[in-house]
Amino acid sequence: MKNCVIIQSGGPTAAINASLAGVIDQAKKMGYDRIYGAINGIAGVLRHHLIDLTEKLDEEDFLDKLMVTPAMYLGSCRNRMPDPIAEPAQYEQMFAFFREMNIVAFFGIGGNDSMDTVAKLSAYAAKTDSPVRVMGVPKTIDNDLMQIDHTPGFGSAAKYVAASMLEMAHDTMIYPVKSITIVEIMGRDAGWLTAATALARNTYSDAPQLIYLPEVPFSITECIEDTERLLRERNSVLIAISEGIRDKEGKYISASDSAVDKFGHQQLSGAGKALEHILGQALGVKIRSVELNIPQRCGTHLASQTDLLEARALGEHAVKLVEQGKTGLMASLERIDGENYQVAYCGVPVAEVANGVRSVPRDFINERGNDVNEKMLNYLKPLIVGEPKISYVDGLPQFLDVSHLVSSVTF
Amino acid sequence: MKNCVIIQSGGPTAAINASLAGVIDQAKKMGYDRIYGAINGIAGVLRHHLIDLTEKLDEEDFLDKLMVTPAMYLGSCRNRMPDPIAEPAQYEQMFAFFREMNIVAFFGIGGNDSMDTVAKLSAYAAKTDSPVRVMGVPKTIDNDLMQIDHTPGFGSAAKYVAASMLEMAHDTMIYPVKSITIVEIMGRDAGWLTAATALARNTYSDAPQLIYLPEVPFSITECIEDTERLLRERNSVLIAISEGIRDKEGKYISASDSAVDKFGHQQLSGAGKALEHILGQALGVKIRSVELNIPQRCGTHLASQTDLLEARALGEHAVKLVEQGKTGLMASLERIDGENYQVAYCGVPVAEVANGVRSVPRDFINERGNDVNEKMLNYLKPLIVGEPKISYVDGLPQFLDVSHLVSSVTF
Repeated sequence: MKNCVIIQSGGPTAAINASLAGVIDQAKKMGYDRIYGAINGIAGVLRHHLIDLTEKLDEEDFLDKLMVTPAMYLGSCRNRMPDPIAEPAQYEQMFAFFREMNIVAFFGIGGNDSMDTVAKLSAYAAKTDSPVRVMGVPKTIDNDLMQIDHTPGFGSAAKYVAASMLEMAHDTMIYPVKSITIVEIMGRDAGWLTAATALARNTYSDAPQLIYLPEVPFSITECIEDTERLLRERNSVLIAISEGIRDKEGKYISASDSAVDKFGHQQLSGAGKALEHILGQALGVKIRSVELNIPQRCGTHLASQTDLLEARALGEHAVKLVEQGKTGLMASLERIDGENYQVAYCGVPVAEVANGVRSVPRDFINERGNDVNEKMLNYLKPLIVGEPKISYVDGLPQFLDVSHLVSSVTF
Repeated sequence: MKNCVIIQSGGPTAAINASLAGVIDQAKKMGYDRIYGAINGIAGVLRHHLIDLTEKLDEEDFLDKLMVTPAMYLGSCRNRMPDPIAEPAQYEQMFAFFREMNIVAFFGIGGNDSMDTVAKLSAYAAKTDSPVRVMGVPKTIDNDLMQIDHTPGFGSAAKYVAASMLEMAHDTMIYPVKSITIVEIMGRDAGWLTAATALARNTYSDAPQLIYLPEVPFSITECIEDTERLLRERNSVLIAISEGIRDKEGKYISASDSAVDKFGHQQLSGAGKALEHILGQALGVKIRSVELNIPQRCGTHLASQTDLLEARALGEHAVKLVEQGKTGLMASLERIDGENYQVAYCGVPVAEVANGVRSVPRDFINERGNDVNEKMLNYLKPLIVGEPKISYVDGLPQFLDVSHLVSSVTF
């Protein structure tokens, strides 16, 4: 018997199940007998809560449906594993379970916290000469993992925010009145996803006219100046901001005392609402803020086919790496220089990925710090291309049944 | 020369341009020489700001692209016209302009405010024996117009909120922790669109578990009770609320003093944030609120084909009514009793539509007032069926160029 186990962890993306489909498909092809999924990440391994994904393959179109099912089919967790050298108890228990279940390979699909788990399992395996091979598969809508050109899940979220921005551009230009619309995008530490709103620009609309990322200190004064200038030339101004914008002292705009003090209001919410209040007071025009919120990370109906196919290929590549005898890596992809967009798959040491954050380089942002430039656009453009085939029944997209995640047990 | 003019007004929907396409197409077929569109609603007529839509028909696939272009292709306005008998000056000017331009028919596409405009023009035309025929074409995502089974734009918005709710159900069930997600939906006075979140329910997910509409007085105590009970049985609770929920004194929850007093926080935003704060304090679990905001009314990429085709047919029917010598009507539709969903088109006196609001009947809501029932589901189901063919280029939906709306002029 040669079995493997897969976990998913961290926050949802539209593509994380495409990676799961890739691992399952390739593991089946490479002769694994049982492909287990642990429910709720590493906690599911510790609690021996596995489902047999090999059996699911008998269900009609299981992998095709899995490809387009949003969020984690296996559930998630936010557990942080202890140091495997100082506190080996949980690892001992897990690896004993692996032996018992004939599990020879472990696949962890997730972001940088999840890669920390993968790195720790891999360190423990190395220390104990375990035959279990440990492999990471990347995902995050934030696109902020180290050692990879871009992360699965990002392209789909980027497409969602760009398409929504374009539709909002149409929505906001209909009235002959001055108005400001602030759109708050996810990404606390990295501005990649907020930058992707620039993809909405076309021959007739330059919305968003301003883009603020967390990588550049946010100046309220300059933002007011820039918005005021734009409002002289046009009626409707759209501003894309990252939820993580902060001032030059590093204080988040959402929690900024200035907003509370100046206007005597307690801020209950994020950067968008805070800026809505600040600009509204300063400029006195119609203003609203839109927080795209969780739909931007689970909006599979608007996924990027490029993203889904790469996510799947990374899952497949992780299995291939294991079969080549590799361990302690994360399946990764590089962009190949050339006229047409192309990527090559590789493996990178997972320890070099864990806990790092890849910010937007300063030279992808304009000098004033209120927009992205051509370099960013060229980087982003290929990532949102293509639409998956999604089945609709009675007007709604059809996803996989995830009733195995419905539970009242907390841990 | 036999010409006509079309206006669009009120708030955006995903289907209002489908009605415009219907009017243009049918007017062309019925021998109109020039089909004018007034920019920014009735204000465009008063300012003589017209574009010649007949010329646009030469552009490739103009009507097909118009069908799926979100918001008003002709722009909008919120002007309220004066009484045509007491203050006829603006009407005199407009009808003189109609004569000058050989305009014999006026089509107003909009909601109940817009039908008020149509009713007033029609009253003026009747009083002055003008040969100009005046016809309304309905739209509103709120579905609250009188004298129609359901309004164009509603089905697409309903599909958007239902699909987003389903994706959020996947997103929120991944963690083994107790959590509440509140989703705030548009509809200040009528709960139709909030009710449509119930369409997201399927064999594996009953989200949203609670639905609160403005038609039933909202009790904070009961909402806390209901949520607490649900949290005992499951980890993730999704609650759909209308932006217009109010307590038994008729006070909006968003502006409710109770929230301010009890918790010492000033509320800057709507019902979702207010309830997030109230339930979070009362139940002490992970909580967030999502305001679907303007994307729900302009998300054409997720439009209902049933809705778009009906919107177009209503535009066509409005022209047919004019050609039958009718005036002062709104093109409308009735649902035909029977096993399969079917509608019949008709005309209703526009004065009976103007300024009325059709609320959700009490017998579409369960007794406790925290959910909708089978009657509502049967009413809603057919309205979201079908997906339009939308062209994507470089990963983004392709809409019509609306640069004619970009302006710095306010009025």
